[in-house]
Amino acid sequence: MLKIALGQMEVIPGRPDLNTGKMLTMIHDASHQQADIIIFPEMAIPGYLLGDTWEQQAYLRDCETFGHQVIAASRDICIVFGNVAVEWDKHGDDGRVRKHNACFIAQNGKLIAKRIKTLHPNYREFDDTRHFFSLRKLALELNQDVESLIKPVKIMIKDREYSLGCIICEDGWNDDYSVDPIAALAANGPLDLIINISSSPFTLGKNNKRNRVFSKQAQETGVPLIYVNNTGLQNNGKTVYTFDGFSTVYNSAGQIIAYCQPFTENLDYLELKVETGGLDLKPVNVPNDFTIDSLYQAISYGAKRFLQSIGMNRVVIGVSGGIDSAVSAALYASILGPENILLVNMPSRFNSQTTKDLAAQLSHNLGCLYTIMPIEQSAEYTANQISSTPVTNLATGKQNKLSVSSFVFENIQARDRSARLLAGIAAAFGGGFTCNANKSELTVGYSTLYGDQAGFLATLADLWKHQVYELANYLNKNVYGREVIPQAIIDLVPSAELSFEQSVDEGKGDPIIYPYHDYLFRAFMEHWNRATPEDILLWYSQDPAVLEQKLGCQPGLISRLFPGPREFIDDLERWWRLYTGMAVAKRIQAPPVLAVSRRAYGFDHREAQNGPYFTQNYLKLKHQILAAE
Amino acid sequence: MLKIALGQMEVIPGRPDLNTGKMLTMIHDASHQQADIIIFPEMAIPGYLLGDTWEQQAYLRDCETFGHQVIAASRDICIVFGNVAVEWDKHGDDGRVRKHNACFIAQNGKLIAKRIKTLHPNYREFDDTRHFFSLRKLALELNQDVESLIKPVKIMIKDREYSLGCIICEDGWNDDYSVDPIAALAANGPLDLIINISSSPFTLGKNNKRNRVFSKQAQETGVPLIYVNNTGLQNNGKTVYTFDGFSTVYNSAGQIIAYCQPFTENLDYLELKVETGGLDLKPVNVPNDFTIDSLYQAISYGAKRFLQSIGMNRVVIGVSGGIDSAVSAALYASILGPENILLVNMPSRFNSQTTKDLAAQLSHNLGCLYTIMPIEQSAEYTANQISSTPVTNLATGKQNKLSVSSFVFENIQARDRSARLLAGIAAAFGGGFTCNANKSELTVGYSTLYGDQAGFLATLADLWKHQVYELANYLNKNVYGREVIPQAIIDLVPSAELSFEQSVDEGKGDPIIYPYHDYLFRAFMEHWNRATPEDILLWYSQDPAVLEQKLGCQPGLISRLFPGPREFIDDLERWWRLYTGMAVAKRIQAPPVLAVSRRAYGFDHREAQNGPYFTQNYLKLKHQILAAE
Repeated sequence: MLKIALGQMEVIPGRPDLNTGKMLTMIHDASHQQADIIIFPEMAIPGYLLGDTWEQQAYLRDCETFGHQVIAASRDICIVFGNVAVEWDKHGDDGRVRKHNACFIAQNGKLIAKRIKTLHPNYREFDDTRHFFSLRKLALELNQDVESLIKPVKIMIKDREYSLGCIICEDGWNDDYSVDPIAALAANGPLDLIINISSSPFTLGKNNKRNRVFSKQAQETGVPLIYVNNTGLQNNGKTVYTFDGFSTVYNSAGQIIAYCQPFTENLDYLELKVETGGLDLKPVNVPNDFTIDSLYQAISYGAKRFLQSIGMNRVVIGVSGGIDSAVSAALYASILGPENILLVNMPSRFNSQTTKDLAAQLSHNLGCLYTIMPIEQSAEYTANQISSTPVTNLATGKQNKLSVSSFVFENIQARDRSARLLAGIAAAFGGGFTCNANKSELTVGYSTLYGDQAGFLATLADLWKHQVYELANYLNKNVYGREVIPQAIIDLVPSAELSFEQSVDEGKGDPIIYPYHDYLFRAFMEHWNRATPEDILLWYSQDPAVLEQKLGCQPGLISRLFPGPREFIDDLERWWRLYTGMAVAKRIQAPPVLAVSRRAYGFDHREAQNGPYFTQNYLKLKHQILAAE
Repeated sequence: MLKIALGQMEVIPGRPDLNTGKMLTMIHDASHQQADIIIFPEMAIPGYLLGDTWEQQAYLRDCETFGHQVIAASRDICIVFGNVAVEWDKHGDDGRVRKHNACFIAQNGKLIAKRIKTLHPNYREFDDTRHFFSLRKLALELNQDVESLIKPVKIMIKDREYSLGCIICEDGWNDDYSVDPIAALAANGPLDLIINISSSPFTLGKNNKRNRVFSKQAQETGVPLIYVNNTGLQNNGKTVYTFDGFSTVYNSAGQIIAYCQPFTENLDYLELKVETGGLDLKPVNVPNDFTIDSLYQAISYGAKRFLQSIGMNRVVIGVSGGIDSAVSAALYASILGPENILLVNMPSRFNSQTTKDLAAQLSHNLGCLYTIMPIEQSAEYTANQISSTPVTNLATGKQNKLSVSSFVFENIQARDRSARLLAGIAAAFGGGFTCNANKSELTVGYSTLYGDQAGFLATLADLWKHQVYELANYLNKNVYGREVIPQAIIDLVPSAELSFEQSVDEGKGDPIIYPYHDYLFRAFMEHWNRATPEDILLWYSQDPAVLEQKLGCQPGLISRLFPGPREFIDDLERWWRLYTGMAVAKRIQAPPVLAVSRRAYGFDHREAQNGPYFTQNYLKLKHQILAAE
């Protein structure tokens, strides 16, 4: 019988001192509880998402020193933990000192073994290959089979030898690689237990898949598998990730026999009869991960931890009476308390009484700080100053004046609200102001740079508009248990109210038709093989129903929205041009995005400002379709 | 005798249609000139820096089709060109279709051979490993020596068989890798000619190194080497790179016998006796690359191409009378003509008559469009609106007012200039406005978000302050041949003039002491092994002269600036905190940076918003030093 402690700790990236302190405390507790092994996550000491901090040798030395402290603490317990392993006399492909993403196994105050990560993820937000030397590269250098290097670790516990297969995160997600570290471990066995230490960011629905994949591994090898993941928040600058922990134990039949609460730091204990593969323990049900509940947890946890990480206790939110700012207000009020949230309504002549009243009602419902600061005079002043001040051509002496169009005036208002008022108010209030843009807007740049696109965090920018509505209902029903977000805000047509053309009282609003465009944009952005106009038009040409099925939107919607292919194509090209054109320029200067989906803007979705392009096949197909009309 | 055409083309990323059109024209010309071979750069068809566009299968199909067109054009000439090679029935490590960064060799209208890139750079701005499957990975999958797969290509030209060693960019920069593709080619020889097709971004001084490295390769193998690189501009969103071409031919003794003009699209011809290794051709002198001349070329070319790529013909620049905006104004006026440049002076009560006059004088010297729009009233209005509007606590009914400190007011002014005025003016003028921040400011966030940090491109943000001054002198002397930037601007103390504490007339200015901090910040940022406070303090503790030598600043400066270690340490910690703290948050929302140095902000320098950290060794050393005082 092994008593195993699951050290599901919150890892603070860039703080090896704090992480080590936390680990030593947990080790102390686990030793006290007579645990035989304690398992910590991947990169528990340094943190995982550090950008190019990995290039600082001083930082590497520091993590090494803290690693020695953890090893020294293994007098009465076996410790399995993740850290960077530095080979000071070797170099990586970049000429810098060689670093491994490694799993350390310590016992009796000494290092027993070290295993290095075989598979380095190099998609989405991951950058392992940039910094670390994988076992695959090592095998190539040594001119050996990589499989032969993947060996279990043998440790003695209570006079029995155990053979542990220690792998790191991606090693367990090997479907698409030519190397299968788990099969290699089994082949180089015997094997009593597989331990996967991970630093795996939350993605909506990922745990469902992980349970299928890891369960199969345990079943196929007939060996129990323990997955330990960290909690906390880490970021790549432009994209911010929550880590849900959700450490899980699978028995040799692949059944889940224990798991730690997600988004909670935990030191859970498990008594496992390795001899029987944990088959004597009762399987437990793990909650489905692809739910609004899970989404809310990630967003709320992420926003809270982000505030903590930058030391921000007070938040300013511009409330328009629309849905995005309402959700933002309800969310932040639930995190910091309403007394620390200052809601600001900033009307101009274009804002309806309806939305002004709704903004006030929302604020009353939440009991926040509230103020109204109109932008009418200041926006007007700016337009006048620009259009009435003469511009002199100093080569010719001629004078001219600039003219401010209504479109230019729309953006003047948006910037007046954010960069003039909210930024000033936030500084005076001693806090920051939020960016309330959603993913649909961010996709096509339907927001103003230095205007409503500004803020310290784009909290909702990985949610499609329909998810923002879901979150609104969830906040009312499950978080507050009352209608803090007025139903009228949820029912209102979405509008920027920057001109009379966008009057909500006349039912006019955004040019984005969310029930269709949410799904079209998602196909551009989130499909593993990105959908382009070529794909979309091909599906449409097969049958609008085929496209609806591919996109996952409501059946029958596309035929209702577009009278014929010409209108469909105009719409497709319009949004594709924006998505790959001006919106890219805007996203480059966007705030950090809190990621929850399988693909978030920023470092997860790397993009160049290269402008729109239509492939030859697209142009041919379009020509055929329009010629046949 | 081989007649070789060097196709130093401008590659437009994301435009396979235009690139292929260009290639077909060059192929036609070269065939007409009876050239035997024409060589195009790496990724000549798709472009190189495309972000995740590589995940669009429609784009890959498109590039493949254009590749077939180029191959078909090889009836009378051998064509060597770079393109993506797709293995539709295989997958990469990410599960997507397998893509190679490949070199195609075509003749008689057919594909003769294909070679894939062995070494994938994964440092700085490079992301090859994210998208492409390298020969190293293939060797691992095939369980073969990678060296055995690196074979020359045999082609028949005028009844003689030639053996070409075709490699791609990084394959020639193999010092730090365990595989040497050139040695492998030579071992698998015979070898008549090495061809390195590249897409290698400009970095100040890199060509000097490239000539040393490639020259040695030609000499050691005794085989002539032809390097063909593209021109143009490509970007990773956040960082913008110029490509200088500078294609070069080395004979078998390693001497340079030909090169193409940098930053110029070229179709140059060379007659090479492969039998004699090109030793009969006279060596030529290649200009030194590490000069202000080279820097100016890159900046000017980069800004010009960036404007073209986004279709911008008119530019607005806020001119303060300081050096950064003056350089920006002179630069853009030389690119677009002064009639397309609108210079805007935006004084407040804090701006001296001195700088107002200098801004006007600069504008007169350049003959640009000019206007003065004060921010005094608007900034005052904002401060008043914020501090006089009551804020109500809706839970208690209590009212309060916010107060605007002088620091808050400084930032209000900066945002008033950029987000209120310049953004509005630029929109009305039909152009964009520049960000004039330099690298020293960007390093420590000495600029205001949505204020002077805003703009469509941070043109000077990869230049340390002392390089901005060098560029100012260069513009006057070499570009304009007259003092367009008034000498008084060059001589003036640098100041933000946002408060009376920053009065230039009293010689007060920025808190950054550029002659020292430029070099300290450069060590943080550009040293290959990033210097941290631990390294800096260690060098200082050895001797301030050691530190001066490590940093490359003026000898004796550090002792003059700091009375003792306490002051030195305070200064070090202050800037390190900013560099790794608030400045990171600001850089996340900064405009794209035009890169010229060995390390530019953005995608080249990846960073997480993790906050400042001091290593244990640093803290110990600091304690020792201060205790000894």
